[in-house]
Amino acid sequence: MNYLKKVVIAIFCLNFSILQAQEHPNIMLSKAGIEEVREGCNKYPLLQKSFAQVKADADKALGTKISIPVPNDGGGGPSHEQHKRNYQAVLACGISYQITGEIKYADYVKDMLLGYASQYEKWPLKHPKSKTSNQSGRIFWQILNDCVWQVNVIQGYDLVYNAINSRDRKIIETRLFTPVVKFITETSKETFNRIHNHGTWAVAAVGLTGYVMNKREYVEMALKGSDKSGKSGYLAQLDHLFSPDGYYTEGPYYQRYALLPFMIFAKAINQYEPQTGIYTYRNNILEKAINTSLQSSYTNGAFFPVNDAIKDKTIESGELVYGVDLAYAEMGGGADLLDIAQRQGRVIVSDAGLKVARDVAEGKAMPFNYKSLLITDGPAGNEGGLGVLRSGSNKDQQCLVFKAASQGMGHGHFDRLNILYYDNGSEVFLDYGAARFINIESKNDGEYLPENKTWAKQTVAHNTIVVDKTSAFKASAERAQQYHPELICFKGEGDIQAVSGREENAWPGVSLVRTSALVHIPGMSKALLVDVFNAESDKVHQYDLPFWYSGYITDTSFPVRQYTKELKPAGDKYGYQHLWLNSNDSVASGSGYITVMNNRRFYTTHFAGTSPVNVKLASIGANDPSLNLFNGKAFILSQAGTAYQTFLSVTESHGKIDPVAETTTGAKSIVSALRIIRSDREQTNISFDVEGKTYRVVINYKDKNNFIQLIK
Amino acid sequence: MNYLKKVVIAIFCLNFSILQAQEHPNIMLSKAGIEEVREGCNKYPLLQKSFAQVKADADKALGTKISIPVPNDGGGGPSHEQHKRNYQAVLACGISYQITGEIKYADYVKDMLLGYASQYEKWPLKHPKSKTSNQSGRIFWQILNDCVWQVNVIQGYDLVYNAINSRDRKIIETRLFTPVVKFITETSKETFNRIHNHGTWAVAAVGLTGYVMNKREYVEMALKGSDKSGKSGYLAQLDHLFSPDGYYTEGPYYQRYALLPFMIFAKAINQYEPQTGIYTYRNNILEKAINTSLQSSYTNGAFFPVNDAIKDKTIESGELVYGVDLAYAEMGGGADLLDIAQRQGRVIVSDAGLKVARDVAEGKAMPFNYKSLLITDGPAGNEGGLGVLRSGSNKDQQCLVFKAASQGMGHGHFDRLNILYYDNGSEVFLDYGAARFINIESKNDGEYLPENKTWAKQTVAHNTIVVDKTSAFKASAERAQQYHPELICFKGEGDIQAVSGREENAWPGVSLVRTSALVHIPGMSKALLVDVFNAESDKVHQYDLPFWYSGYITDTSFPVRQYTKELKPAGDKYGYQHLWLNSNDSVASGSGYITVMNNRRFYTTHFAGTSPVNVKLASIGANDPSLNLFNGKAFILSQAGTAYQTFLSVTESHGKIDPVAETTTGAKSIVSALRIIRSDREQTNISFDVEGKTYRVVINYKDKNNFIQLIK
Repeated sequence: MNYLKKVVIAIFCLNFSILQAQEHPNIMLSKAGIEEVREGCNKYPLLQKSFAQVKADADKALGTKISIPVPNDGGGGPSHEQHKRNYQAVLACGISYQITGEIKYADYVKDMLLGYASQYEKWPLKHPKSKTSNQSGRIFWQILNDCVWQVNVIQGYDLVYNAINSRDRKIIETRLFTPVVKFITETSKETFNRIHNHGTWAVAAVGLTGYVMNKREYVEMALKGSDKSGKSGYLAQLDHLFSPDGYYTEGPYYQRYALLPFMIFAKAINQYEPQTGIYTYRNNILEKAINTSLQSSYTNGAFFPVNDAIKDKTIESGELVYGVDLAYAEMGGGADLLDIAQRQGRVIVSDAGLKVARDVAEGKAMPFNYKSLLITDGPAGNEGGLGVLRSGSNKDQQCLVFKAASQGMGHGHFDRLNILYYDNGSEVFLDYGAARFINIESKNDGEYLPENKTWAKQTVAHNTIVVDKTSAFKASAERAQQYHPELICFKGEGDIQAVSGREENAWPGVSLVRTSALVHIPGMSKALLVDVFNAESDKVHQYDLPFWYSGYITDTSFPVRQYTKELKPAGDKYGYQHLWLNSNDSVASGSGYITVMNNRRFYTTHFAGTSPVNVKLASIGANDPSLNLFNGKAFILSQAGTAYQTFLSVTESHGKIDPVAETTTGAKSIVSALRIIRSDREQTNISFDVEGKTYRVVINYKDKNNFIQLIK
Repeated sequence: MNYLKKVVIAIFCLNFSILQAQEHPNIMLSKAGIEEVREGCNKYPLLQKSFAQVKADADKALGTKISIPVPNDGGGGPSHEQHKRNYQAVLACGISYQITGEIKYADYVKDMLLGYASQYEKWPLKHPKSKTSNQSGRIFWQILNDCVWQVNVIQGYDLVYNAINSRDRKIIETRLFTPVVKFITETSKETFNRIHNHGTWAVAAVGLTGYVMNKREYVEMALKGSDKSGKSGYLAQLDHLFSPDGYYTEGPYYQRYALLPFMIFAKAINQYEPQTGIYTYRNNILEKAINTSLQSSYTNGAFFPVNDAIKDKTIESGELVYGVDLAYAEMGGGADLLDIAQRQGRVIVSDAGLKVARDVAEGKAMPFNYKSLLITDGPAGNEGGLGVLRSGSNKDQQCLVFKAASQGMGHGHFDRLNILYYDNGSEVFLDYGAARFINIESKNDGEYLPENKTWAKQTVAHNTIVVDKTSAFKASAERAQQYHPELICFKGEGDIQAVSGREENAWPGVSLVRTSALVHIPGMSKALLVDVFNAESDKVHQYDLPFWYSGYITDTSFPVRQYTKELKPAGDKYGYQHLWLNSNDSVASGSGYITVMNNRRFYTTHFAGTSPVNVKLASIGANDPSLNLFNGKAFILSQAGTAYQTFLSVTESHGKIDPVAETTTGAKSIVSALRIIRSDREQTNISFDVEGKTYRVVINYKDKNNFIQLIK
């Protein structure tokens, strides 16, 4: 434990019983700042627009009869959606009350909360749609949503606190918030004390309630766990859920989600107990988490969909509006955060949002500074990580993501050494993400589908090697959680940017080393993606390396013969049962290329192997009786039986298709003569030609200082 | 022949030998207008930007060595693309010369043309990549491209005419343009005299050359065919290629393409012989053709892809920039054309473009007035047509296209009574378009693929009934060309917009009547698509009605059991051989629904049949060894054996998915209890409920005045 951390914890201890004098509001909006925010709502376009939306939501709520249905649906169902609308309305009306001063908004919140207070205790401790009793909510099918509900509602209550008489406040506090906290901290104790994003929502709900209700007991439990030992609770979560680089082990999709309660609770702690310096806790871990979250996205805004992830999710999501506004306004974040705020098109109607909106209005925004960077994983930063290589402007960026992170708990995929590749605003080699139709009730109540386990998590669903048609760790999350890949090298600058990782545990007796690089060849406008994957074993194995591509194959160096009369699944387990095998062609020469047309550009992947390869084409959809899977296509480099195999590929981004003018340029790759000169434990040495000139790339596995070189 | 037409032809006859005094330039840019256009290039943003682009292209050309390769490639190949760049450069430099007055641009054109003049006659009359000798070009693989080349190059020549000395002009005219015209009018006589879009490019090339070179002979052949009889040539094309509504029988994709030479040549005729009133020929057929072209598009700009069509093509394409500018500036087109000009983001650097840019700059643009309208087909307007129904604002428009047009010559599909349906900026029920990777040389030299015949043209590739798994007219274009469907009714206004058509000839002994309607139910924000398809015969047939959808099925009223272990083609010919059959479920109740999630919205299609139906799911890809087909999915309503069958469907557009906020509303359809009360030759009478209230739709096939009614 470092010194700063000790000091911070000491300060928290000293302050156990010394809460600030109670003021309302005092979370995102503060009594001190309210006048300025009111003025800003008429002055700065982003804030103006954001408040107009909040007020429109509030007015819409006011125009509808209050409805508090008995909870009975899964995600996306009518009662689920109604309770969600209710907490949104409470918060919107709370803000609208503070900005306009109109009592009708406060009255709505009061009536809503009294309504809940009159019913909440009647609802059973186990929701009818809950599958387990320890994760059940009372308002929603899972406790998580109840906590989210409380995080929102308690803020709304804080905002109208002074407009509710003390008798009604007492009813609300004793018959709603107190039993809610009891439910969270006792009935749902397991969730409350989990070091997990559900736990963060739970502690934020309880902690915020403690501050607003002036209940030190709640705050203390929130910070240090229900037994106040510090083994769980908010501070333990800050210690364990993020790596020193601010990476959240479940991956960017959940990082974004997890950030919101971290941020809101941090803001409340900072409001009530600024002396604790929560923003600087663990070397500014919160600010790092926000930056890492933003850096875990492509220029189109989408988060890298590693592990369970809904792929539409972008940095424009509401959680990151909180993150960006607070990081900029209160944590010293840079002016490039204003670029993100502009893309989000809104700010929180709050003290922080005011600063962001004002500075955007004053033209201070700079383009967001996407970086090549290594994001370490694990509480100590030594459990692998995510390597991100970028090249080109924000308008046409190549981006390679190399996943050598640890398993990522329950939402982790068996995707050791997986790569994702982006260019031209689009996915080139992609990750399926999660098998889930979120909030679509007809699809398993909006929950994860069985195919999330049978398909999306399996190794073959990723752009990484599968050994013997078996997933890493035989798809055992428990085993996978015990090991993490090793990062061999990361180089984020220069003519050759590279990241390299090793995985020794996923398949017994098989050592995997992958090195992926963006290589700049003089005279070429785009970098080449050079990917070297070595698999080594004492025994003979089948090695499959899929590339999940978007677009259409327009050219191959070898004849592809798709099956015409019958399709069969590519296997019977580990995800292969969900693939239709479309073709299986041996590439006699041992090397070749495949050209894919995607978003008006071409991608030619030249490949070679140390032993000859077959190229298999596969498409998603087998063993999917209930239409739970999305479409997807892969070409798979496959070696059916060898002990040592290197798969080399060089992918060139080239050409331009203008479908409106119907012109095509640069449809042919200018790379040729790909060759593996040497590949073993010590070194991989490859060469290729570009317009007649030969280039070599040499990787020295044992020399970290001189790991990879381009020889011109 | 109507009176006006007679007069116009008379005027052409009178003027045979009286050309205007030769002035240069005198096509898109005129000597009289040039000063104003020069000023406008510094004044009006659209013109400024457009000229900047032209000048950038010209400067780029000037920076590159002139290259005139020996023709040897198919579409997309290097020599093909070089010759294309050359004609573009000639035109760009010609314009740049006129606007800037800088002689370097004129010199470039002169050098380029002298270069061609020194080589053209050496090239063989049959291009090495040409498949037929009568359609071969000399510069390109097909004569069409040679004509396009000449249309561009002759304009460039006109623009720099005065800057070339008479000796060089003589070389260019005698050794390039004269042999080009000879090649087009003699070697390629068949194309030149075709009533077909290739013919239009040919006559425009020759006619423009005639005006610029002051060769009346050429103009005369261009207007009236190589024998000057008037049976072919430009005027005959204007008479026969467009319906009285300005519809071009090959369909919108080719209409756009065909329009360009029509427009440019019309403009030249009007410049040189304004007294002919070419713009008013055949009741303003040219202006109608432009309007019909624009009305044959959805709000996303894409043309309705009926018949052979590349689906990316939009109203932003260059051809329509000419069309829109001329229609607005010279043919009295409305201010809503300026909306299109704004979306095109450019104008022709020309007298017409000046007016458009000026009026856009002056804020005169109005939103484009998309209409519900019937576009008749056939030279006399009595060969069926395209019914277009629209509802909603340009931002969120529902649009139904009903194809009861005639076959459309060689590019026609066997798609009698096909429908296309759009909503929310997206395709809902779609047409495959053409099987072609245009300009992708590795895909059959960029030409139509064999699958265009075996798949894209076949009936099952469309949203219309297939009888006995056989395409209309057994896929004989010759037979299909002899018949057209009958339009029974078109109603483009009111609570119930509808179009109805009958096809009696596609399958012997089977009469098909389809009626599709957009029906507004009080209280619903979007119209319902009601579709009634009757098939009648003395004999028992299999009737299949596919709906090609985009998106993912999220719900069905009946259990769908996709095949899990094996896929087989759905048939062995007429396109079925290209479909994998994914499931085949009988719907015991005879009616049901399918919900599709597409672009953040849901589409629930309720269906019912007079006899029970099976629902088959199918996906494109079988019998595609060379990867020539795009993906696509359909649900097919199928009745295996009956004489009379009605397929009724009601498709509701509902709900909203916000993937960033992860919220879903209105995921359930509010339509229920769909029922066919009566369906026969006289009447179809159906009912359905919306939120408890029953509505009926009654179609009276024999009562055109009271054809369809909504009974509330």
